[in-house]
Amino acid sequence: NMSKVKLAVVFYSMSGTNYQLAKWAEEGSREAGADVKVLKVQELAPQSVIEGNEVWRSTVESTKDVPVATSDDIEWADAIIFSVPTRFGNMPSQMKQFLDTQGGLWAGGKTVNKVVSGMTSAQNPHGGQEATLLSLYTSMMHWGAIIASPGYTDPVLFGAGGNPYGTSVTVDQDGKMLEDVEAAVKHQARRTVEVAKWVKKGNQ
Amino acid sequence: NMSKVKLAVVFYSMSGTNYQLAKWAEEGSREAGADVKVLKVQELAPQSVIEGNEVWRSTVESTKDVPVATSDDIEWADAIIFSVPTRFGNMPSQMKQFLDTQGGLWAGGKTVNKVVSGMTSAQNPHGGQEATLLSLYTSMMHWGAIIASPGYTDPVLFGAGGNPYGTSVTVDQDGKMLEDVEAAVKHQARRTVEVAKWVKKGNQ
Amino acid sequence: NMSKVKLAVVFYSMSGTNYQLAKWAEEGSREAGADVKVLKVQELAPQSVIEGNEVWRSTVESTKDVPVATSDDIEWADAIIFSVPTRFGNMPSQMKQFLDTQGGLWAGGKTVNKVVSGMTSAQNPHGGQEATLLSLYTSMMHWGAIIASPGYTDPVLFGAGGNPYGTSVTVDQDGKMLEDVEAAVKHQARRTVEVAKWVKKGNQ
Amino acid sequence: NMSKVKLAVVFYSMSGTNYQLAKWAEEGSREAGADVKVLKVQELAPQSVIEGNEVWRSTVESTKDVPVATSDDIEWADAIIFSVPTRFGNMPSQMKQFLDTQGGLWAGGKTVNKVVSGMTSAQNPHGGQEATLLSLYTSMMHWGAIIASPGYTDPVLFGAGGNPYGTSVTVDQDGKMLEDVEAAVKHQARRTVEVAKWVKKGNQ
Repeated sequence: NMSKVKLAVVFYSMSGTNYQLAKWAEEGSREAGADVKVLKVQELAPQSVIEGNEVWRSTVESTKDVPVATSDDIEWADAIIFSVPTRFGNMPSQMKQFLDTQGGLWAGGKTVNKVVSGMTSAQNPHGGQEATLLSLYTSMMHWGAIIASPGYTDPVLFGAGGNPYGTSVTVDQDGKMLEDVEAAVKHQARRTVEVAKWVKKGNQ
Repeated sequence: NMSKVKLAVVFYSMSGTNYQLAKWAEEGSREAGADVKVLKVQELAPQSVIEGNEVWRSTVESTKDVPVATSDDIEWADAIIFSVPTRFGNMPSQMKQFLDTQGGLWAGGKTVNKVVSGMTSAQNPHGGQEATLLSLYTSMMHWGAIIASPGYTDPVLFGAGGNPYGTSVTVDQDGKMLEDVEAAVKHQARRTVEVAKWVKKGNQ
Repeated sequence: NMSKVKLAVVFYSMSGTNYQLAKWAEEGSREAGADVKVLKVQELAPQSVIEGNEVWRSTVESTKDVPVATSDDIEWADAIIFSVPTRFGNMPSQMKQFLDTQGGLWAGGKTVNKVVSGMTSAQNPHGGQEATLLSLYTSMMHWGAIIASPGYTDPVLFGAGGNPYGTSVTVDQDGKMLEDVEAAVKHQARRTVEVAKWVKKGNQ
Repeated sequence: NMSKVKLAVVFYSMSGTNYQLAKWAEEGSREAGADVKVLKVQELAPQSVIEGNEVWRSTVESTKDVPVATSDDIEWADAIIFSVPTRFGNMPSQMKQFLDTQGGLWAGGKTVNKVVSGMTSAQNPHGGQEATLLSLYTSMMHWGAIIASPGYTDPVLFGAGGNPYGTSVTVDQDGKMLEDVEAAVKHQARRTVEVAKWVKKGNQ
């Protein structure tokens, strides 16, 4: 009796975009039969800075009931979808801190064979939408993870900009997504779950 | 008496896009006072394959008088702008072969302090437009080159998609460029020449 | 009745090192129950250049009965292990040409879900041993491949330099490998086959 | 009357290695005639965690008089040398946070034309010594920085492992550096200052 694939969607969101991507990934994953947790990473910015930025404050408010990701969540998960905005072509420090603090889990071999993929957003079409995901995967190779990026596995991906490394979206200065990536996110989520099913079943 | 900056624009083009980018880079560089050579790299595909593809054949025809880049050209140059389409998120083998065969020049220390930047094209907005340039720069670090990518040094770059690693353009299936990147290319060319001027003057 | 995992080891070798890595990968893969093909990619250098280099000529001679990899081999394979020396922090043009010419296979969706890993060599410990593998995986994401790099999945990897992206080895000017990586290669091969088994079985 | 090159060495160090690299870079830079500031980035780990780790606590103690880097320091600097241990093939969150919080400086165009290079350390020879530096440079391209990595510009670099992206060192479990990289660090520092001199002079 095969248990469901356990999938953690781990995101950092300042403007709400990556929280939305995470929720779409949750929907797609559930439809594919996964047991899903949506989790945020710990904020590093001081409260005063957040208070001074209306959009950021609003995102913190709307995600206040989302649990903070822990090592236990990573250990629990068969698969992980990461979602982060770019910061100078690399993940934000908030997500990097989350990864960095999994050293104990890593040393115990508990990060091996997680099936992973990533999503991202940027203000410019070529402002790190590829580089951010590639640097995430570099870290995932250290974890011994199995990388199942979307590639060009479905025509829906072309409409979302054809990012083979993971779904990415351009966000304007008002925080509005400029492409409709919902279907691409859901495809990516289903693919991540599917590969995780194979790995989980084979691994038993 | 300071001589002009010598700039080589080295491109590979199958559909004509990167030849056009190269010509815009040539214009921008000349305006910035450089002595410019536009150079193609050696084709690797068999003539029969080229003949069977109308666009490709036409590009080969239109570039038939463009000289093939040599080690002497690289040695001559103070600065180099590379222009290549992406092939699976990396430069085409034709350009890679050109780089690979500069081993003698490299061993003699003749690739050091060249000021470089790159340009690229892809069929998808996120289909390697960042990754291709980043992998080019990795090789350039082996050469001891000085990398002067455009970053966000001019507002014109935002209109071209805001690729800080170099100008990139999306090309549809008919070979038409989907963004107007001419001004961004010319800015990049001027910047490359400007940095090369500083290096050349300082180095004397 | 589950058929064996079909694994292609595709290498380029000038000094013999990557041919040796390929043969160790073949051994490890067979022990793991795979049906294995060892394949070289087409040489691009002129015969006259090869003739002038004793080591190179000797490698060409010793690999003369190794079949040249084709699209049919990639289509056949459930898993692929690539092995290449670095050339300026990226794969050699010979291997890049092989990848580039799989465009037809790629367009037909025939590169999807191949389980892949890579191996490399360099003259310097940090002379591209990481970068070369990372750029290979970038291309593999375009293929929709599933990346199963070794990570730190076995203690034997530490003795080989602890490259989580794939086994790599330093080669001195006489072509001698400076680290003993045979066991690491075999572990990597077994891991690649194991993940491919899961994917193949799940995919049926 | 040309003012001296102003160079900031910005490091994060937990075990003391990158503090040592920073001090060697300081020496090399001063010898090359630069005005140098050695600066640490803000720690993110809780005091209780640091207290529980003798080496870490000792590093915090020995660097307690080192000033914390600020945006003013980056604005002041003509050149920057970064030094960080790897964390899963990427810079630690502490350094990433420092970069992330320079958004204001970046938006004001104040990061443009800084001449930069990076240094790193890892427990494994191939455990991120290349990847960490490459991801740093990706961010630096967003800043519009000019990248002057060491390449193979001096024979001393071969003795330090021949990392063309920047000096890197392997550190054993007792925190001991396994290669003698002092001379390579000093060469890198001199080169960074030299290129910065050219840029500063040309830019005036």
